[in-house]
Amino acid sequence: MKRERISDNVIRRLSMYLRKLDELTDRGVERISSSELGKQMGLTPSQIRQDLSCFGEFGQQGFGYKVAELRKQLAKILGMEENFSVVVVGVGNIGHALIQNMNFSSLHFDLTAAFDVSQEKIGTSVLDITVMDSNEMTDWLKVHPTDIAVLSVPKSAANEVANAVAQCGVKGIWNFTNTDIELKTDGVFIENIHFSDSLLTLSYYLTRGKNDV
Amino acid sequence: MKRERISDNVIRRLSMYLRKLDELTDRGVERISSSELGKQMGLTPSQIRQDLSCFGEFGQQGFGYKVAELRKQLAKILGMEENFSVVVVGVGNIGHALIQNMNFSSLHFDLTAAFDVSQEKIGTSVLDITVMDSNEMTDWLKVHPTDIAVLSVPKSAANEVANAVAQCGVKGIWNFTNTDIELKTDGVFIENIHFSDSLLTLSYYLTRGKNDV
Repeated sequence: MKRERISDNVIRRLSMYLRKLDELTDRGVERISSSELGKQMGLTPSQIRQDLSCFGEFGQQGFGYKVAELRKQLAKILGMEENFSVVVVGVGNIGHALIQNMNFSSLHFDLTAAFDVSQEKIGTSVLDITVMDSNEMTDWLKVHPTDIAVLSVPKSAANEVANAVAQCGVKGIWNFTNTDIELKTDGVFIENIHFSDSLLTLSYYLTRGKNDV
Repeated sequence: MKRERISDNVIRRLSMYLRKLDELTDRGVERISSSELGKQMGLTPSQIRQDLSCFGEFGQQGFGYKVAELRKQLAKILGMEENFSVVVVGVGNIGHALIQNMNFSSLHFDLTAAFDVSQEKIGTSVLDITVMDSNEMTDWLKVHPTDIAVLSVPKSAANEVANAVAQCGVKGIWNFTNTDIELKTDGVFIENIHFSDSLLTLSYYLTRGKNDV
């Protein structure tokens, strides 16, 4: 199927739509117009119609969107029916926290393994995941085809580890290393976590709050 | 000054604009039209004009936006000239990682202290921050007025700590506890980190990649 390239920002808004639809579901809302959805999300109705039209026909003129149906379609578009397998590479602070708190299974991801170089960490468990030796990672990945690697190693190891997992067939890298990764393998998606966007949003509200006083 | 309420999603896009403008600056781009900026960011030109018009007059018909000027204005709007002070409460995995890797000063935030309940952590240092006893936190905050608290304590302590810092005058809470906070103090902004949005974006690309094969 040929399709146009959909911009990254449209994709990023999909999970925001998903959260909003979950919230509407919790509130018992069964359908919503693009104008009301736009109002609640700070987007113009035309932006919403344009975003969603990238993926098919969802709404109905004069009727709006069915919340449950749109939620289901978005979850599918976002890959939540794929049951992607995930490994965590680097069980330092961030890696440990993600295993412990991320609740991958609630989003339909299958966390299967974790790796670290530290002898102190190898063999220990975080929830039901036992940390394996990073030296065994590539052998393990060859036997256990894996979709996503969470990259939570130090900056200095980022490129080496990213290239290693990519060569073992990993197709998605969730990058917490705060550095840009240069991959030698094509067809691998890298998603970088931008903590600063969130901090600056908070900072905006504080600044406005100060000036409004 | 009276102003209209600006939607949260507009605010969230500001830091994306900022990153884009930094990238354009690095590439030596001095001005850009709303249509080109829209193309690069996956937004319609009218969305961009609408977003920015919330804050004043930036662009010029037929000329576009001056990159350096717009960057400066956005940084100001985002509070980067306020030099907000920040404390980290909870030096577990996430807290430790943020102190070590977040580079608050590069965004013009002033990281001043960190607190934890664990006797093993109290007195240890992360970079130049010495972890203090959480029992001393409220006394310390009363003497050192603080703008932002990074909340990286366990879920079970989230509400108690959030209310404690709010009562000491903290006006912004950056919430990494994966739980909704109920505050008894008014006028405090809470910013929640949504890791799942980022993971689902990656998941989307993987799914599309699979289906395009």
